[in-house]
Amino acid sequence: MSSHHIVRDDQEPALIIANGASCNPELLGQLLEWSPLVIVLDSAMVRVMELDIKVDVLLGDFDRGFDPEIYKTSQYPLEIVHTPDQNKTDLEKAFDYLINRKIPAVNVVWATGKRADHTITNLTNIPKYRNLLKIVILDDHSKVFLLPRKFEKWYTAQTPISLIPIGQVTGIQSDNLFYPLQNDTLTIGYRTGSSNHVAQDGLVTILHEEGDLLLMECLD
Amino acid sequence: MSSHHIVRDDQEPALIIANGASCNPELLGQLLEWSPLVIVLDSAMVRVMELDIKVDVLLGDFDRGFDPEIYKTSQYPLEIVHTPDQNKTDLEKAFDYLINRKIPAVNVVWATGKRADHTITNLTNIPKYRNLLKIVILDDHSKVFLLPRKFEKWYTAQTPISLIPIGQVTGIQSDNLFYPLQNDTLTIGYRTGSSNHVAQDGLVTILHEEGDLLLMECLD
Repeated sequence: MSSHHIVRDDQEPALIIANGASCNPELLGQLLEWSPLVIVLDSAMVRVMELDIKVDVLLGDFDRGFDPEIYKTSQYPLEIVHTPDQNKTDLEKAFDYLINRKIPAVNVVWATGKRADHTITNLTNIPKYRNLLKIVILDDHSKVFLLPRKFEKWYTAQTPISLIPIGQVTGIQSDNLFYPLQNDTLTIGYRTGSSNHVAQDGLVTILHEEGDLLLMECLD
Repeated sequence: MSSHHIVRDDQEPALIIANGASCNPELLGQLLEWSPLVIVLDSAMVRVMELDIKVDVLLGDFDRGFDPEIYKTSQYPLEIVHTPDQNKTDLEKAFDYLINRKIPAVNVVWATGKRADHTITNLTNIPKYRNLLKIVILDDHSKVFLLPRKFEKWYTAQTPISLIPIGQVTGIQSDNLFYPLQNDTLTIGYRTGSSNHVAQDGLVTILHEEGDLLLMECLD
């Protein structure tokens, strides 16, 4: 049944190309390999057009003299979503768009670099979408996502792992991290778990009781 | 008296060159114009050497096979500060070094970009040094600093101003911002004051009662 087929497609993570620093085309290529739904934010479209990528949705407030209509032919079919709400960032509006379409997961590139206010807002906004949308923010050095209360994943030894609390996070317990956490509390600005790493090849377990904890896999 | 003279010199903000993405050499040139005390963090020294800058202090844990001694002749006199403490970042150790030397203020470049964990840790660590060291983090797009309980500064109309709470900040009151704050509460990850701007040429006033509030002046 074709409806079943459509539902299955929408289980693939979508891809949002935001408006910060461009990433390595290789990273973008890997994420595009599964032909996900591609959403581009506002004037990032100008840079995306140079990369020969098929875009499905162009979303933004288009408030800086940027005309989205000119891409309708070259990117046919292209859905243009005009989101004038000034109380949300374009990235938040793209998350809302995906939630409305019942797409459960998204990878986000170009959301870091350039302006520090955009970078910190984009990274720290992830917890707001807990239970609504599984968000992974990626750039050339980093992969960032929100931890569930119990997180388990297989890593090779030495993999750098940073735990960044968004606010305060209590009851943190780790297994197989080089600097173990044992019923620890982390607080943004005062005590974070940055620059830890995996002790040995195998499962890493991270539990926490309350609060929003980001995991960042980062490489120089 | 020479001692008086030395004290005066140390009132100038020092300059820390950290280990993130390099900034525009023009920004670096402006900051170096007043011949501040220059501290370079660890292997950033390799990139700094290409820029023909006189460095005063080279600080780090030097744990990745980097040999600081080789710069002693070309950068004479150069103070090498070995800081093996794994509970602090090199940037925090450089802040501690300045506090020990009773230097009251510092500009920091190359502290953003590249790894997201380093960027977010460097930015959100600023409040920890309230009353100890006046820190300004700069890159090509951003100028970031901690607000005192009452902040007043003259800005031209339209200047972008972002208010980023590190944790929760209460009792925020603004004057001459386009989106005014009136006894507002901001919470990182849930409600921030990103992407505001100055309403008209003149003084901007921002008051807050409790918590740590960063101001970011950012441009695309």
